[in-house]
Amino acid sequence: MTRIAALALCLGLAFAGSAMAQSKAAIQKLEDGWGAAFNQGDAAAVAAMYTDDADVLPPGQDMVKGRAAIEALWRQEMAQIGDVKCTALDVKPLGRRAAREIGTCTFKTKGQPPQEGALKYAVVWEKSGRTWKLLTDIWNTSK
Amino acid sequence: MTRIAALALCLGLAFAGSAMAQSKAAIQKLEDGWGAAFNQGDAAAVAAMYTDDADVLPPGQDMVKGRAAIEALWRQEMAQIGDVKCTALDVKPLGRRAAREIGTCTFKTKGQPPQEGALKYAVVWEKSGRTWKLLTDIWNTSK
Repeated sequence: MTRIAALALCLGLAFAGSAMAQSKAAIQKLEDGWGAAFNQGDAAAVAAMYTDDADVLPPGQDMVKGRAAIEALWRQEMAQIGDVKCTALDVKPLGRRAAREIGTCTFKTKGQPPQEGALKYAVVWEKSGRTWKLLTDIWNTSK
Repeated sequence: MTRIAALALCLGLAFAGSAMAQSKAAIQKLEDGWGAAFNQGDAAAVAAMYTDDADVLPPGQDMVKGRAAIEALWRQEMAQIGDVKCTALDVKPLGRRAAREIGTCTFKTKGQPPQEGALKYAVVWEKSGRTWKLLTDIWNTSK
C-alpha cells in the first residue's frame, strides 16, 4: 500500500458519513416528529427522542436529567399547552455525530380562552447508533 | 508501508489532540475568564470569547447574532448586574473540536439594595484555531 493510498484511505474513513442528517431539513423533520408526539400527548414518545443521559433546562423549574424525569416534565407541560410547532432556524454540525440547532416554537395554552405563546430554544443533537437524539434542550421567552 | 502501519497512522491522526481542553476543569477556567471580564465591565473582552457567528439567546429579549451585537448585549447587562460567578456542572465533548457545557451562575443586581440572583445555562464551545470560543449561549432562571 502506498502512502498516497493510505492517505486516501484515511480521508475516506474520516469523511465517511459526513453528508448525513445534519442538514436543516433533516433536523426539521425530527422537530416535526417531536411536535407531533407532543401534540398527541405521547410523553413517552417525546422522551424517547432524548439520550439516556440528556439534560433539559426548563425556565421556571430546576433542570432535569435522564429519560424518566424528562418524560414526567413533558407530561406536565402537555397538561398546560398544545398545538406546539417548532421551526429550526440554524443547524450547525459539530463533528460527524453532533449538531447544534437553534429555533423558535409557537404554542397555545390550554386555559380558557387559549392564549398564543412563543419561545426560542437551543438544542444539541447527538447520533446514538443510527438515530439522532437530543442531548441538551433549553429554551426561554423573548418578552 | 504495511496495512498495519497505515491503520496505526490513521488512528494516530484520528485521536491526535483528543485529550485536549474539553475537560470540566479547562472549561471552568474559560468560565472564570468570562466572569472576570464581565465583572471588570469589559464587554469587548467578553464578546471576544464568542465566535464571529455566535448566537446568544437571552431571556426576555430577542436572540442576537455576531460579535458586535453580543458586545452590546453584555454592555447592557453589565449596567444591571455584577459579581457574576459561573460554575460548569457538566461538560460533554462533541467530536474533537466542540463541547457542550451546562452550568449555573450567581450574580448581584446593581439596584439598591442589591439582590442576589441565579440562573442556569447551556453553551456550546467550538475550537477556533487553537482557541475555544462560544458558539451558542442560552440561559434561564429556575424560579
